[in-house]
Amino acid sequence: MAHIDLGLDEKAHPGINGPMRFRPETAKPLNALAEALLRAPHPTLSPGERELIAAYVSGLNECVFCCASHSAFAAAQLPTGMTLVEQVRRDLPTAPVSGKLRALLEIAAAVRRDGREVTTELVEAARAQGATDLEIHDTVLIAAAFCMFNRYVDGLGTWAPQDPQLYETAAVRIVEHGYGTS
Amino acid sequence: MAHIDLGLDEKAHPGINGPMRFRPETAKPLNALAEALLRAPHPTLSPGERELIAAYVSGLNECVFCCASHSAFAAAQLPTGMTLVEQVRRDLPTAPVSGKLRALLEIAAAVRRDGREVTTELVEAARAQGATDLEIHDTVLIAAAFCMFNRYVDGLGTWAPQDPQLYETAAVRIVEHGYGTS
Repeated sequence: MAHIDLGLDEKAHPGINGPMRFRPETAKPLNALAEALLRAPHPTLSPGERELIAAYVSGLNECVFCCASHSAFAAAQLPTGMTLVEQVRRDLPTAPVSGKLRALLEIAAAVRRDGREVTTELVEAARAQGATDLEIHDTVLIAAAFCMFNRYVDGLGTWAPQDPQLYETAAVRIVEHGYGTS
Repeated sequence: MAHIDLGLDEKAHPGINGPMRFRPETAKPLNALAEALLRAPHPTLSPGERELIAAYVSGLNECVFCCASHSAFAAAQLPTGMTLVEQVRRDLPTAPVSGKLRALLEIAAAVRRDGREVTTELVEAARAQGATDLEIHDTVLIAAAFCMFNRYVDGLGTWAPQDPQLYETAAVRIVEHGYGTS
């Protein structure tokens, strides 16, 4: 049970959905941020790749609801599906991703620990793999944003379903309709 | 110098201002979130108290730019000014704040470490001091949001001015015009 009375059935509105309904004034910019970062048109990073960064950071933060959600959202939008998501989460160095995406995920992991852990070396390594300023910027902000979302979900003690089917159903909705901004 | 080419003079646009101009698509929801959390009308928490939570978390995260900025924004909106902000940041247990605000700041510190560190005991202690569900929700989200803003600012290696006058000038602008949403 969540730490506060969200005024709803948590089983029907698990994870971040409860606090989002409890406080629509803050839900609106939070959804708009997720939409801009993860779903809006991007010159080089696909929605699946951006969701993979979100899932990876959420896994490192051990946020069960966010990790299951964004793993499902990534899997639904990557040609290689959940297999790749699980490989990245299990062992990034050996996961079959491009050198650029691996370098960006390493930057994301540094941001998660502390912004100051993003070194010139990590940024240069990503550049050497072809990463652009926009890709580095968006990776830093996606990783930072999930340090927020993960703390929001866990800091309020919300409920995370165990059933993978629920996250797959949510993925269908996100792929079709996005995060919305209202 | 920032890790990426922000396409501007960093001295004129320090800290978060550079990345905000570099990427207006994400700046818009970030500003809207700050406005909703820190400036919008609130039944019980003043803008100064909410900025104090932001400053406290940014100080614990050792984010020089965000801590100096939100300390100045809090000081400009609290009757007791910068003295209180410094007392809270130096030693929360002895700082002359209400029992409720101290309990909320303790929740914010827990969120900063990890969302799962917010225990039933911390929430009950805040409730015993009169904290409402809305206050607990907003404290958790402000603390979580500054775990994002701090990482965004530091993860991109932005520049933080030393001159306190610059932060005081920014405070005048925030108090007068808010964070804006465009």
